Amino acid sequence: MTDRERAVRDLVTANRIIANERVVDAYGHVSVRHPGKVDRYLLSRSRSPELVGPGDIMEFDLAGNPIGGDGRPAYLERFIHGAIYEARPDIHAVVHSHAEEVLPFSITTTPLRPVIHAASFVGAHLPVWDIRDNFGDTNLLVMNMAQGRDLARCLGRDSVALMRGHGFAAAGRSIAEVVRIAVYMPRKARVLMDAMRLGEVKALSRGEIAAHATMPQDSPAMWRAWEYWARRAGYPAAAGDRTTTRKGKPRKK
Amino acid sequence: MTDRERAVRDLVTANRIIANERVVDAYGHVSVRHPGKVDRYLLSRSRSPELVGPGDIMEFDLAGNPIGGDGRPAYLERFIHGAIYEARPDIHAVVHSHAEEVLPFSITTTPLRPVIHAASFVGAHLPVWDIRDNFGDTNLLVMNMAQGRDLARCLGRDSVALMRGHGFAAAGRSIAEVVRIAVYMPRKARVLMDAMRLGEVKALSRGEIAAHATMPQDSPAMWRAWEYWARRAGYPAAAGDRTTTRKGKPRKK
Amino acid sequence: MTDRERAVRDLVTANRIIANERVVDAYGHVSVRHPGKVDRYLLSRSRSPELVGPGDIMEFDLAGNPIGGDGRPAYLERFIHGAIYEARPDIHAVVHSHAEEVLPFSITTTPLRPVIHAASFVGAHLPVWDIRDNFGDTNLLVMNMAQGRDLARCLGRDSVALMRGHGFAAAGRSIAEVVRIAVYMPRKARVLMDAMRLGEVKALSRGEIAAHATMPQDSPAMWRAWEYWARRAGYPAAAGDRTTTRKGKPRKK
Amino acid sequence: MTDRERAVRDLVTANRIIANERVVDAYGHVSVRHPGKVDRYLLSRSRSPELVGPGDIMEFDLAGNPIGGDGRPAYLERFIHGAIYEARPDIHAVVHSHAEEVLPFSITTTPLRPVIHAASFVGAHLPVWDIRDNFGDTNLLVMNMAQGRDLARCLGRDSVALMRGHGFAAAGRSIAEVVRIAVYMPRKARVLMDAMRLGEVKALSRGEIAAHATMPQDSPAMWRAWEYWARRAGYPAAAGDRTTTRKGKPRKK
Repeated sequence: MTDRERAVRDLVTANRIIANERVVDAYGHVSVRHPGKVDRYLLSRSRSPELVGPGDIMEFDLAGNPIGGDGRPAYLERFIHGAIYEARPDIHAVVHSHAEEVLPFSITTTPLRPVIHAASFVGAHLPVWDIRDNFGDTNLLVMNMAQGRDLARCLGRDSVALMRGHGFAAAGRSIAEVVRIAVYMPRKARVLMDAMRLGEVKALSRGEIAAHATMPQDSPAMWRAWEYWARRAGYPAAAGDRTTTRKGKPRKK
Repeated sequence: MTDRERAVRDLVTANRIIANERVVDAYGHVSVRHPGKVDRYLLSRSRSPELVGPGDIMEFDLAGNPIGGDGRPAYLERFIHGAIYEARPDIHAVVHSHAEEVLPFSITTTPLRPVIHAASFVGAHLPVWDIRDNFGDTNLLVMNMAQGRDLARCLGRDSVALMRGHGFAAAGRSIAEVVRIAVYMPRKARVLMDAMRLGEVKALSRGEIAAHATMPQDSPAMWRAWEYWARRAGYPAAAGDRTTTRKGKPRKK
Repeated sequence: MTDRERAVRDLVTANRIIANERVVDAYGHVSVRHPGKVDRYLLSRSRSPELVGPGDIMEFDLAGNPIGGDGRPAYLERFIHGAIYEARPDIHAVVHSHAEEVLPFSITTTPLRPVIHAASFVGAHLPVWDIRDNFGDTNLLVMNMAQGRDLARCLGRDSVALMRGHGFAAAGRSIAEVVRIAVYMPRKARVLMDAMRLGEVKALSRGEIAAHATMPQDSPAMWRAWEYWARRAGYPAAAGDRTTTRKGKPRKK
Repeated sequence: MTDRERAVRDLVTANRIIANERVVDAYGHVSVRHPGKVDRYLLSRSRSPELVGPGDIMEFDLAGNPIGGDGRPAYLERFIHGAIYEARPDIHAVVHSHAEEVLPFSITTTPLRPVIHAASFVGAHLPVWDIRDNFGDTNLLVMNMAQGRDLARCLGRDSVALMRGHGFAAAGRSIAEVVRIAVYMPRKARVLMDAMRLGEVKALSRGEIAAHATMPQDSPAMWRAWEYWARRAGYPAAAGDRTTTRKGKPRKK
């Protein structure tokens, strides 16, 4: 299995996970940077994530042009992905979601502060991007590179940017990381909404967020989550080669 | 397959979709205008949408009389459908739902404003119809054409009318459009309810709603949703002839 | 099939329905009055409703004594059922539930007013029973006939009594009616809770509730719901002999 | 079947139950004290509870060291379990959960008071532990015995301690008891959150909590819940030997 085949396989699993965990529904998408070519990314044709299979994956350059004359309809908002890969060499996977629990924080001035330890995956700061600021009245969709780059600028060095009245874009160093961020975004939002009704909220300290951020990314705890979500989505073997090494078998051949 | 057979097939799928997405439960219904006869519509006999099959579909004239001596029990509230088709030649599909997330906006004076981009499918204005205004104390059901026409008048040129203490009626130019409106109504309501607890809400501008409304209806993005919801409801082939053309096969022939 | 066998069959289906619709969980129960003996009722042994089968049904006299030397453990709270049958000859089925959406109205002074048309199944008035009033500090369970009768007195001529910090008891003229009441109780509570956050709530008028109450009980609309819930719970044939007659087949022989 | 084998079997069932009832997700865990060796406990390797099987169970001493040279990755937070067993000889099972409904009470000053009879399983008092008090800025995880013992001190003689921004730890006299506590914690939290929005809340009295606490633990009602949750999680035979004795068969032989 080549690196590209492995990337496609994991991307399909990621599609199924974020659909099954209700991060996306008919709309929303997840991509990975091409494992061998830093100026390309892999993303499904225009299809709901729950239905995506290996044959649906297309390849794009960072400007959103399909590679190899692939003429199938693509997501209108693929520019979110390319613009973030262009601005952030450290990022290898991107999720775009309309998760409804997160939306209230995109249309009010209440910041989605980190209050639970799982939220520290996301970092201390969550910028909110309003397409209206620089593009006036639009249909709110990110339909070209200018809009994508404006969003990427707002994201800056952070992991997630909220998009006003629309959803969020999440950026991860690996597909497992971005899936975990995406799955926890709605939960993080729900807990804060509920807590705010009870009274004054005790947020995580900067030190606590920093302490969490230094935990190793390629840890058993992270693959535990990937294995769990993949299984729930019906993909028992999806992360097989990785979890196998976790069971004590030697990784080297 | 005739146009009528295709309409019946898609109507059955629409029944399953709105049941599976929890827009309707034991009650509520969806109809389509007859594809060849503008003064007739197709609607299930009195049965819960999740259980509706092709054999359950009846044909009615706009006044709600069954065609062909079909004596099976019909929905008491079928007059909602006929009255809207009568008033709105542009409308080809209607959903009636009691979705509980929408009900709070029908019994308070808080308007269900569009605040998320998906809500712009519905339009800028959402009238609320109160049967008590013109008919006094009733069981709240729309049981005759006079009540149906009063509701249709309240709906006017809009896409959805809330019905006080009861639910909503949604009108679409196609069955895929009305299903999408219906599926997003509860989500739109939930997001606004949650956002209002967080503080001042930034609504969509008129220009944003207008921009969204000009997007093509027969787009890959719309059929992506139909395919997704149909599959989730167990109908993989339901929109087959349409999604097939999306995969690159020639539509003609 | 005898009347008793039919009653047992429908009681098993009712158990599955209220479990599947999340009216009950591990706890809670549903009974029917014996179809031939007005001073007896049928109720499962101590078992979660989702798991109840025909062999689990026991027969009790109104005081809660098992008939025929049946020594299997019975529900501790079976006295709720006998006391209501004793006080209300018009009642033929009873549900006891801890549904969490209803509980907030049992521990505050906010009345669970009817605000949606489906709520009018329940009637205009919903008394709240507090076991502490007459029995002091207890474990809150209805463990004997004195407590059961006190609850039945509070219920009076109504259809549902809330039980403080505990749940509710619902009484129906038929098992289909009590199941419908029970299924809609949590929804009714959720809608009112949500509406109260939006502002002043427009309740059903007395006339509207009365108008709804005069609708025929043995209607296609009622059996439509029973058929739907039974199917969802995996019981396609449960109300077969009834829905069959709805399809136009002659009921007689 | 030895006592240890039976403990492993029930521990696997408990893992599946708390996953299926959404008390835990990818993270969180449940342990039992070794049935024959009071200074040891049984706990899965680092794996999501929904996926845990008998082969995943490891054995630890109270300090969290694996027995028998078992080198598989263990939960980072296993110290929660050992520290509670060390401090509380009466406790035989422990659950650690991040259930999001409970989290708001861990980050505000609103106490999670018992207001429903099911909540009295948990007791009258629910301490909140803040790791920051004695350990400053951490990643919030309980990563060593000093932190575990600090948590156990805060728990004291109670059944549940909330952990600020993180979750809760529950302690039971048996695995069935701790599972019931854990399953009801989120429900208890939801009811109180909802009730607080409606107005002044009527809490359980001390006498009511005490009355509930004196109910027998090894009752049909407790095994009814275990059987129900196990079945829902796909484990029909899991508590077989116990529920069988409940059906009247002699336990001896």
